[in-house]
Parts: sequence; C-alpha cells; structure tokens
Amino acid sequence: MKKYSFKNDYSEGAHPSILERLINTNLEQAIGYGEDEFCNEARASIKEKIKKEAAIHFVSGGTQANQIVISSILRPHESVIAAESGHIAVHETGAIEATGHKINTVSTSNGKLTPKEVQHVLDTHTDEHMVKPKLVYISNSTEIGSVYTKEELTTLYTFCKEKNLYLFVDGARLASALTSSKSDVTLEDMANLSDVFYIGGTKNGALIGEAIVINDLKLDEDFRYNIKQKGGMLAKGRLIGIQFAELFKNDLFFELGKYANNIAQKLAEGLSNKGYQFLTEPSSNQIFPILPNQLIEKLQNDFEFYVWSKIDENNSSIRLVTSWSTPEEKINEFLEKINKI
Amino acid sequence: MKKYSFKNDYSEGAHPSILERLINTNLEQAIGYGEDEFCNEARASIKEKIKKEAAIHFVSGGTQANQIVISSILRPHESVIAAESGHIAVHETGAIEATGHKINTVSTSNGKLTPKEVQHVLDTHTDEHMVKPKLVYISNSTEIGSVYTKEELTTLYTFCKEKNLYLFVDGARLASALTSSKSDVTLEDMANLSDVFYIGGTKNGALIGEAIVINDLKLDEDFRYNIKQKGGMLAKGRLIGIQFAELFKNDLFFELGKYANNIAQKLAEGLSNKGYQFLTEPSSNQIFPILPNQLIEKLQNDFEFYVWSKIDENNSSIRLVTSWSTPEEKINEFLEKINKI
Amino acid sequence: MKKYSFKNDYSEGAHPSILERLINTNLEQAIGYGEDEFCNEARASIKEKIKKEAAIHFVSGGTQANQIVISSILRPHESVIAAESGHIAVHETGAIEATGHKINTVSTSNGKLTPKEVQHVLDTHTDEHMVKPKLVYISNSTEIGSVYTKEELTTLYTFCKEKNLYLFVDGARLASALTSSKSDVTLEDMANLSDVFYIGGTKNGALIGEAIVINDLKLDEDFRYNIKQKGGMLAKGRLIGIQFAELFKNDLFFELGKYANNIAQKLAEGLSNKGYQFLTEPSSNQIFPILPNQLIEKLQNDFEFYVWSKIDENNSSIRLVTSWSTPEEKINEFLEKINKI
Amino acid sequence: MKKYSFKNDYSEGAHPSILERLINTNLEQAIGYGEDEFCNEARASIKEKIKKEAAIHFVSGGTQANQIVISSILRPHESVIAAESGHIAVHETGAIEATGHKINTVSTSNGKLTPKEVQHVLDTHTDEHMVKPKLVYISNSTEIGSVYTKEELTTLYTFCKEKNLYLFVDGARLASALTSSKSDVTLEDMANLSDVFYIGGTKNGALIGEAIVINDLKLDEDFRYNIKQKGGMLAKGRLIGIQFAELFKNDLFFELGKYANNIAQKLAEGLSNKGYQFLTEPSSNQIFPILPNQLIEKLQNDFEFYVWSKIDENNSSIRLVTSWSTPEEKINEFLEKINKI
Repeated sequence: MKKYSFKNDYSEGAHPSILERLINTNLEQAIGYGEDEFCNEARASIKEKIKKEAAIHFVSGGTQANQIVISSILRPHESVIAAESGHIAVHETGAIEATGHKINTVSTSNGKLTPKEVQHVLDTHTDEHMVKPKLVYISNSTEIGSVYTKEELTTLYTFCKEKNLYLFVDGARLASALTSSKSDVTLEDMANLSDVFYIGGTKNGALIGEAIVINDLKLDEDFRYNIKQKGGMLAKGRLIGIQFAELFKNDLFFELGKYANNIAQKLAEGLSNKGYQFLTEPSSNQIFPILPNQLIEKLQNDFEFYVWSKIDENNSSIRLVTSWSTPEEKINEFLEKINKI
Repeated sequence: MKKYSFKNDYSEGAHPSILERLINTNLEQAIGYGEDEFCNEARASIKEKIKKEAAIHFVSGGTQANQIVISSILRPHESVIAAESGHIAVHETGAIEATGHKINTVSTSNGKLTPKEVQHVLDTHTDEHMVKPKLVYISNSTEIGSVYTKEELTTLYTFCKEKNLYLFVDGARLASALTSSKSDVTLEDMANLSDVFYIGGTKNGALIGEAIVINDLKLDEDFRYNIKQKGGMLAKGRLIGIQFAELFKNDLFFELGKYANNIAQKLAEGLSNKGYQFLTEPSSNQIFPILPNQLIEKLQNDFEFYVWSKIDENNSSIRLVTSWSTPEEKINEFLEKINKI
Repeated sequence: MKKYSFKNDYSEGAHPSILERLINTNLEQAIGYGEDEFCNEARASIKEKIKKEAAIHFVSGGTQANQIVISSILRPHESVIAAESGHIAVHETGAIEATGHKINTVSTSNGKLTPKEVQHVLDTHTDEHMVKPKLVYISNSTEIGSVYTKEELTTLYTFCKEKNLYLFVDGARLASALTSSKSDVTLEDMANLSDVFYIGGTKNGALIGEAIVINDLKLDEDFRYNIKQKGGMLAKGRLIGIQFAELFKNDLFFELGKYANNIAQKLAEGLSNKGYQFLTEPSSNQIFPILPNQLIEKLQNDFEFYVWSKIDENNSSIRLVTSWSTPEEKINEFLEKINKI
Repeated sequence: MKKYSFKNDYSEGAHPSILERLINTNLEQAIGYGEDEFCNEARASIKEKIKKEAAIHFVSGGTQANQIVISSILRPHESVIAAESGHIAVHETGAIEATGHKINTVSTSNGKLTPKEVQHVLDTHTDEHMVKPKLVYISNSTEIGSVYTKEELTTLYTFCKEKNLYLFVDGARLASALTSSKSDVTLEDMANLSDVFYIGGTKNGALIGEAIVINDLKLDEDFRYNIKQKGGMLAKGRLIGIQFAELFKNDLFFELGKYANNIAQKLAEGLSNKGYQFLTEPSSNQIFPILPNQLIEKLQNDFEFYVWSKIDENNSSIRLVTSWSTPEEKINEFLEKINKI
C-alpha cells in the first residue's frame, strides 16, 4: 500500500465539478488560444469578484506566469526585488535570469517583504553600473506558509508606487492565503493593492492553470505576444478557461482554499496539543512543525512529507501540506500515529 | 446555431477514453513534475513502439517543445535551418530568437526540406562573422499538409549526420503524417531517423500535451533543467502522462490520426469529383482546395475555415482541417452545400 | 613585400591628427565611462553639426552599436525589419537574435529599403502568433556601396512615423555616404530623418569608435545602463571622445570621407575607361567592378581584395574598398597593372 | 586647477611606449578582427610567459571579457558562483544575467572565495528545480584589493576540478595582484590554476584592452563566434594587439604593476605611520584607509577619491587607487596635506 503523502497540494487530479464540466463541454467546438467562451466566462466571474476592469490571461503553471509577467514588463537593465526564499529566486531554475533579468534578493525572517528591505536595495543601486530595481515580487501565501495582512500589503504597495516600482504577487497558493484566519485580504484587495497578480489553480483543485490578472492596464499592452513567445498560449485554451469558470462559480475557489486551511489548522492544533512547536506560525495550508528526529523517522514509515530544516541535534522541522482533497481521516491517522509512538 | 468549424484540429476537448482515464485515476496520489507512474506508463508504451531506449519528456504545447529542445541543444552562436513556412519561423512570435538563436530560412515548394536547401545555408555560412548552422528543423506533417517519405527522411538524416547537424522533427501533427496514405514512415523510423522529435497530443485527441523523444541520449543531459527553466514542467505532470498512456494503449494514437486522414480524404475526393484543384496534394488532415471566391463566400455562411491564399482574381485556396472528432456528416453537409450552390 | 590591400577601410591605424591629440592629452586625468571632457567636446561638435539636442554615446564598434540600440529600444516580442543584405542580418553572428529579437528580412535590388518592402512585412505580421515589427534598420552607405538620397530617406522616415515604426540608421560608413556625389543628405538631415543613427569612426580614420546619436530623446531613457550591460562602456571613454573631438574639428570627418570617395571614383573611372562594367553603380568608397576571372587571378598577385560574386562562367565581380589612407599611387598601380595584363 | 584624482587606475591615457608603437606602426596595413601580426606577436609573448599552448583573444573591456567567457562556456541552466562583492555580481548592470545565467553569490570577509563557500552553494543546489552551479568566478586582485596566494589558488582550483566546476579568474587588476608583496603567484601559475583567466590592460597602462587566456582548449571551440556575437571583435584588432605586444615586451606589464603597488605601499605606510588603520590589509594598488570624517572632508578639497564605507559615527574608510602613472609627488602631497591638517 502506498503511503499517504503530505508532500504537496498537487498530488491528486481535479475537483469533481471541474471534471464534470470538462466532460459536459467536451464536444462543443471552441476557438483556440484563450479567446473562447469558457475563458471569457471565467474572466467575467473573476472580474465580478475584483470589481475592476482588469486584463485576465490563463497560463499553465507558476514558473510560466512569473516568467511571462516579469519579462513582458521589464526593460533589459531592470531587475526584480525578491525575498531570498522567493520561488523565482530559488526554485525556478533561473527562469527570470533566462529572460535577462537579475533578481536582487533580500533576507527576511518570515518570507514577507516590507518597504525596509526594498529600500535597502534601492539605496545600494544608484547608477548605471548596477541594474535598476523596478519590480517587487512577493508570494501570498509565501513559500513558508505566511500570509500578508491588508495593512502590510497596503503599506508595501503604497511604498512601491512612491518609488515608481511595480508590485507583482505570485498567488500560486492565493486561495489558501485569502481564506487564512490570519488574513483580512480579499481578492478585490489583491486587485487594488498590486499591479499584477496571479491566481493559482493547480494547487487549488484544478488539473492545470493559473490566471494572470493585470490591474494596471498599461502593462497589458501586447501581453498576448509575450504569452505566445514564452510557450504559454495553449491551443486548447478552453482547458484552463473551463476550470477557472468552475472555480469561480459559486465560490468553489474560496471553499477549496478554506477547506485546505481548516484541515491544516486541525492538524496544527493536534500537534500543538501534543506540545510541539512550529518553525513559523501556522497560517495557511503549509505548516512546519518541529518534531524529534526519532518521531520523524517513524512517521515516515506511514506518511510522505519533506523534512524542511535541522533545528538542533535531536529535532527538525518538517513541512506538511494539505489541500482541497486531503481526507480528514488522514489527519486523524497522522495524529493517532504520533500518539502510538 | 454556431457554424461548424474546419479551422483546426483542436476545436474540441479530448477523446472520451482519455477523459475516462482522468476520472478513474483522479484521486490517486502521484508525485509531481513528470516523474509519476502515469508518465512512466506512457514512456514505456512509446518506447515499445520505437523499440529504443530514448528519453521521453512531456510538455504542454508545440511552441514550448520547440523552444526547449532547441535552446537546450544549441550553443549561443549556433542557428537553426528551417523552411520559410516552418512553424518556428513564422507562428511562434520569435520563441526561438527569444532564446538567442537565429533561424536561417530557406524557401521550399512544398514545405519540405532536402539536403540541397540545407547545403545552401552551409555554403553561405563560412566563418565566425556569421552564425553557425547546427540544427535542422522540419515538421511532419508540414504546415501545408505534406508528409515525408521514409526515403526523404533517410536522405535528409544521413546528410545531417555527415554535416554534423542535428535533425529535429516537429510532430505537432505526427499522427496524421504517419497514417497518411502518402507516407511509409513509422514511429520507429522517426526514432531512427532524427536526433529528437516530438509527438503531438493536442492536435490528436488530447486536451493538452506533446511528448518529446530524445533519440540521441547525449542530448538528454540536464534536459529537465531546461524544461523547468522554460516553464514547461507541470506540477501535475500526471495530466499529460495519463493522456499519452491512453493514446498509446491499443494504438488509439494511430487510430485517431487515421480517422482524421480518412475523413479529410473523403472531403478531398468529394471536391475533386466536383472538378476542383488543390494548392498542394491532399496528404494528411489538412487540405487546401482552390475554389471560386463566390463559392467560398457562400460556404462561409455555414462553415468556418481559413481562406489561405489568393490564386487569381476569381479563385482562392482555403484550408480545411479535420480531426479525430470531425463527424462524417459534416463532410457530407459541406459537399452537399456545394452542390446546392 | 606585402601586397597592397583593397580589402577594407580599416587596414591602417588612425589619422595623424588623432594620434597627435592622443599624445598631447595623454597624462591629463579624466573621469571614466564616457563622461569626460573629451567626450563632451565631441558631443558639442556633433550637436553643432546636427543643430539638435540629441543624446550622443560612444561605443567601440558597429555590431555593439547595433546590438545596444536595438535591444535597448525594443520589447521582447518586437522585431526588426532589414534588408537581406543588411549587416545585422548576415555579418554579426546573430547579435540581434542573441538579445531575443527576430529580424524580418526583405530582398532588395540595391541594398536599400523602401516603404514597399516594409509594408510587405507589416502585411504579413498581423497577430500575436507572429513577432511585431517595430524598428526599421538601414545602412547608409549600404553593404553594397549604395547611398540614400534625401528624398528616399524622407519618404522612408515619413512612412515609418505613420506606421509607428522606429527608423535606425547604421552609419558605419556614413562619412562616405554623406560625401558621395550621389547623395544630397547632410548630417543634419540624418538627425531629422531618423530616430537613432550612428556615426562610424573606425572606418573613417579613427582607431576605434562609433558615435550613437539618439534623436528621439525618449529613446535615451536609461540608455547608459544598456551600454554598460552589453559591455560597451569603456573605462577610458576618453579614447573615443578624443578621436571624435578631432574628427569633428575642422570637418576632418567629412574631409576623410570625401577623400575616400574621390579615390574610389578615380579607380572606378579608370576601370570604366577600360570598358569594365560594375555590379552596382559606384557611389561611395566601395566599388564592385566586373572583371574577367583570368584578370582577377593576375591582379591577385599584387593586390588583396575580395572576389564578391560570380557573374558568369568567365567573369566575377570584385570588391575594392578605399579609405582616407589609400595612397593615390596605389590606384595608379592597380590601373597600370591592368594595362600590362 | 583640477584636483588630483586617486579615484581609479584609468584616469590617464597609455604608457608612452604603447603610444610610440601605435605611431610607428600606424600606416602598416594589417588584416582585421584580431588575426593580425601584432595580435600574434602579443599572443606569442604571453605564451612564452605562461609556457603553455593556450588560446588568447583580445577584447575591449572587463565586462565584455566576463560576459563573453561565461556565456560561451555555460549551458542555459548553468550558473556562476561568485563573491557578493564580485564585479559581475554588482557592477556590470546584470551583464551575466543578460545572457541568461544566474549568479549564486556568497558572502566573504575579504573578497576571496574558498572551497567552503563554493561547497555551500553546491549543497543547496540539488535538483532540476534549481540552477546548476558550473563556473566559479573570482577576481585577482579582488574588488577590495586583496590577492590570492598560490596555495589558496591551488586549493580552490583543485576543488573545482574535483567538483567538475570551471574556474574563471577576472584579472582586470592582475598586474597588481601578481606583483604584490603578498602574492607568490606567477602568470604561469594563473595558466595552470584556472580554466580561463583574463589579463587586464586598461588598468595597467593600456588605452583599452583585456587579453582572455583560455587554458582549457576545449573551451576555445568556436570562441571567436561568441566574441563577435557579443560585440567584442574589433575591426582594428591591431589596436589591442599592439598594446599587449608592448606590455609583454621587456616585462613592461609587470613593471607597471609593480610601480603601482610600490607607490600604494608608500602611501599606506605613510598613513600607517600616522596611526591610521585599514579596512583590509593593503596588498595591491587599491588601499582602504580609515580616516576621521573631518579629515576626509578636508582632503577632498585637494584630492578626488571615493568614500567607501562608514565605520562609525566619526570615521569612514576611503578608497585610494594608484597606477603606473601616479607621480610619487602626489603621494607626498597627500601625506603632507594630512600633516598640515
């Protein structure tokens, strides 16, 4: 029997509603490349939520979304400011640099950027012998599970506008961020407090797909050329359109994010009740409990998860990720397993 | 009522077997990024067909496949030789140049390359003030519906090897090419007569996905890094693995290609019987009949298709594309419509 | 004894006035990177000629000038329109593509572009599946020695502005073009009839150096960042500043160009008097006489030059290039040599 | 009267021997693009010093040398390991990233890399979701004036070879490094303890020019294509050839480096005798004394130099750079000025 995996939130297929819609629409003819009626339906639903005339484009993955947005916006000498732990800085095999742009990284305690760190980069980039920082990249939720509050986001965005910087938000796990009990940010806020952001589908119940939302319409000029050039324009664009249409019908998107958070919270509480600490405060669908190495080894007999970092000689943090599809019973099994050990 | 579209072979969703498999496997957990058991099943099935230890990678689209393969293989100063009508030369928004490589184009009468045209490029690129041609790109079937014979492919590949050039075949419509009555090429031949090729899924019954087959294993070194960097590595790699597993079970891939060809042939014969000529000999699932402009206008009331090129004052060629999902009755309706006009 | 070379206009060092100025200023301290007083002196002299507040930057060579200008101006999906014979299209080892941009080439009879060819590229690039043509590149004089008239340049520039295209002029041999008897274009005209152009020093008496003149000041934004990034910002920027300061003092630049043209014209007339034809009308310091192959072989015993193209079984065109430093006696020797043969 | 500048080692023109040779050879015809007899003479002289059959290429500046070497060697997904203070990481406007490659930076105390820092990067780059570190970049002397010993260089190079990494040395100030009293490294050592290095001319008496030395001849394959593509191939290649021929005749190169070091040492000793400390141990032609802010302000009335870093409320470090052309009297004036204040 396979071990149950808490490794990530993309281990299963799609939410059943999505599969059903794919089947029901399968033989309807649609034009290609994201200009079909399904994509338009999804666009309308998202715009209704953000209450704004944004431009919305669908692509197949997060690295692709990041690469297309950043390379489309920046001139060759302009750079990106990101946290050292930022996905583009570490886990995209140099996708941003591959389009010619340097990433100026700053260290953070919790994966989140503030004006202070951004200002430091500005202060140390003063003339044409250095790159010109022009775009601030953040993730919400971050790579270590933290989420931005509305105040934090407002402060950062206001600062960016003062400094003539773009703010771009990687929302691979945006559903979990927006439905976190630690967050008061809405999708509408995202549209008002960033220049561009993307809404992650892959990690929230879709088979594939991210929705790029361009709030600053000047940045939308010729954007589709850049999607095409970077290999992001699907012939059967309907595939992603249908999924986002479903996700944003009856708030399924938020419901799935909320479920993942709740189940993660339940897991966190169970661990906390047993006296375990966390690397970072559990806020979204990724939690990082600190466990004795011996316990970790035994848990690995029944579950899959990543060992995240060494805490001391005897303890390590691990990463547990839940999703829309995590059965509550697996949480219970995990907690029971600890009891037995 | 919507008009029926002969515009392309990606107007519908997926073959029902594929949808069924997606549903049946939906809640099985699988690891991400193309290393799951479904991808491995698909790899095994393809290798069985090509009888060779090739490396097989799945990506989401043709432009992406072309960009990743070419940019992974070439050094910065090396160029690609392609037909003027080649997809990479025209319809990929400069995706190859975006990775730094020039395309040296040559004109052809039928979309196919021969050693003669390639030799011409070699003859005119003689020193370091010019790019160094290093990879020959062909499409099978080509952008205008023609297909390579085994002899043509053998001649070209032998020539490439003599000249120390790579041969890369864009197989967006490979199913149609291999099952064409004009072609004696098998999938096994493709693996023996090219260094890399890709097998198109999107245009042959899949929702999404192309399978890159690297025959020269030296070219596979670190290839996954390049897939990732160019945004081609799907978190839910299973999505494409499942589809190719289905396509290569019981020869569904070939069956769908054959169907598209047959239905195109029927349409071609019907038009031929009415006395119409073709821009290029009907060989695969794209045909290019030459019709009076008046007739074209009337047909447009009931069908969608591209007007391809002006022939003379009164006649134009049009492009009609069939697929695995084209109902035979639509062929009949099209031919009847002509009768009535 | 070495054979005298008519291969190009950069076989010797610099005009003596330039060397003298280098010596006289050698130990004066100057700040680096092109912001020194010598560069400013050169800028002032050039601006006086063009009667315009342009931005002027100095770089070391033509490929560098072309690469920096084009990559600084264009967005990733935008392309360049150039003649098939254009230097960037053939003889720069893909330097433009290396920065991500496709070159759309058009064939011309005489190396010069007109609105007709440009319009053809626009007509065939209609949506986001293709690159977006945005900049027209021409050379004056062209790679085959022809020169633009003021009317031709005005027509082309007016057309570009109507179509929202930039016009960039490669002036590697601008001195020869502007002082050609076939041209009525002045340096001031160049500044009014292009968005950016560069003034070639290397081929007109300098050791090294080209002066980029940006007439459309919006295109100058952050231009120095791009010079630096592409390796074009010399620490001892004075080296080029001093040379252009000398070239534009007392019209030395024009005098040297005129001399090269006169001596080329004398050579052309001598050949014409002997009954020889030319591949293109002799207009500048590159001439292309058509000679019997047997004569060419004999001339090669005493002179170096490029055999340019085969005309028929018995005749070929050759390229003869003169410069500011070509001694009149070498022209005489060449013509006499023909007499003797 | 202009203030005397200690800002850098490229404030003046060239050593008189170089100018003289330029004048004496001025009207000799030579073929272009670095294949002339002067370049060959320089190559022979350098090879004699390194006692090795290396490939030697001349380019115009350090950023260009770094960009061409690195982009020619690496595949798209491969990265560079450099010190945070490395020139390519800070002061080249993203020239390396512009060719698609990430730089993995590590912090150092003295600007020098050791196996320990390199190993850390290797340890944290483990799969295809991250770039693949492949080339180690160091500067000798470093950006803060320190120099490598033969033991340090041997240890690092041995480590690189074990780990299948290339070692590339930026020698913009190599003359000063090799003639430092703190260094026992010879030019021959440089050739045996790196895969590629470059010899700086611009900062050691030349008008312009760096000599790239490729010790690992496999890395020389098609290197000239990459020089050309990146705009580094001068038409009048003789300009740099002549200068390096002079620099390596009678050991002028080493003599000039030694002079710059001696004069810097004299300045350092003078400051030390007055009781001042240094940010880093004075080792080459860049020294970083720590002075009271009030003193710095007064010195700025008579001298130009960079204020480098704040030490505490009342003291800062400054950077003083000497060169082959720094008159001893200016050192004396500087020290006297301090006495008077």
